[in-house]
Amino acid sequence: MQADKFNNAMARQKASVDSSIAKADRQRSVLLLLTGDGKGKTTSGFGMVLRALGWGQRVAVVQFIKGTQPSGEELLLRSHFPEVEFFQMGTGFTWDTQNFAADQAAAERTWQEAERLLQDPRLDLLLLDELTYMLAYQFLPAAAVLQALRNRSPSLSVVVTGRGGGSELRALADTVSEVKSLKHAYEAGVQARKGVDY
Amino acid sequence: MQADKFNNAMARQKASVDSSIAKADRQRSVLLLLTGDGKGKTTSGFGMVLRALGWGQRVAVVQFIKGTQPSGEELLLRSHFPEVEFFQMGTGFTWDTQNFAADQAAAERTWQEAERLLQDPRLDLLLLDELTYMLAYQFLPAAAVLQALRNRSPSLSVVVTGRGGGSELRALADTVSEVKSLKHAYEAGVQARKGVDY
Repeated sequence: MQADKFNNAMARQKASVDSSIAKADRQRSVLLLLTGDGKGKTTSGFGMVLRALGWGQRVAVVQFIKGTQPSGEELLLRSHFPEVEFFQMGTGFTWDTQNFAADQAAAERTWQEAERLLQDPRLDLLLLDELTYMLAYQFLPAAAVLQALRNRSPSLSVVVTGRGGGSELRALADTVSEVKSLKHAYEAGVQARKGVDY
Repeated sequence: MQADKFNNAMARQKASVDSSIAKADRQRSVLLLLTGDGKGKTTSGFGMVLRALGWGQRVAVVQFIKGTQPSGEELLLRSHFPEVEFFQMGTGFTWDTQNFAADQAAAERTWQEAERLLQDPRLDLLLLDELTYMLAYQFLPAAAVLQALRNRSPSLSVVVTGRGGGSELRALADTVSEVKSLKHAYEAGVQARKGVDY
């Protein structure tokens, strides 16, 4: 790229960014939805947990579905950040159990923790990992979940991850990112890797 | 969802997942590219850093572009994980500087650190945050960057983040996820938030 072309492009970008910053004048907590079929939703949620902890904020994590096998993110939080409340549904992937009643009961128990945390005025960030599947499988009533998210503690930002989620959750969310899988090592026969995939 | 319908769906999913796992029989390091215009690329890269640290792996981070303002992820790594090598280009967003020569020199200096880390046999994971912009702006020669990624230490997995990246980088990557922005709080006038956006 030519230097003058580069400088002009950057000047235009600066004007655009400065204008957007000037327009963004409201400070409030946000609801983020990370959805889509690609790798990086849960990972991104935990990246936000790390970011908030870096600022000394109070964080909690509730994992729906996951929890039968240890993950690097769980090991790290438990070893280095015992102050982070961390709940897991612990039934593993439901396709391994094929037990609707047991899964639903586990989802409800786990949601009770989430409901309590959504009302905790001391919390800054709450990660509800893979919550969307609880709605897709109708383990949890969508209306109650949406209401609890809407009526959360005012200073609490929430990150919801998982495919789908439904149009009402998308409408309620302030930020929605869709992670699309363009390619996955798995498809080329590469095994899931510690520190990368779990 | 009906219980029998649910159990059947889960049984089908289990068969599909089991079959994929059986086919994935190669263990090797991977190159991941997190691209697209949505929120969650850098965050996901840092989530993977956290995941690898949870397993006691050795990790390093090189941030291109970012570095004039503190971020939560930087604060956390510096305070809790001083063993993580962490380099930042430190020129800030280039649209603030509009100085091609200075930016290019900074990119080259930063890339030298990346090149060294790509050859470090003790490392398990290296995050090259926003490297794609260095290619887009032609601050770094694409051929040399691709070669260094291809010839990296065999046990080292690498995460590259940033919009674009080019078709050759996509072809070289084992896993490519595109983060698409469906909605951003910013557009509704909500200010960037500590612990969420930085």
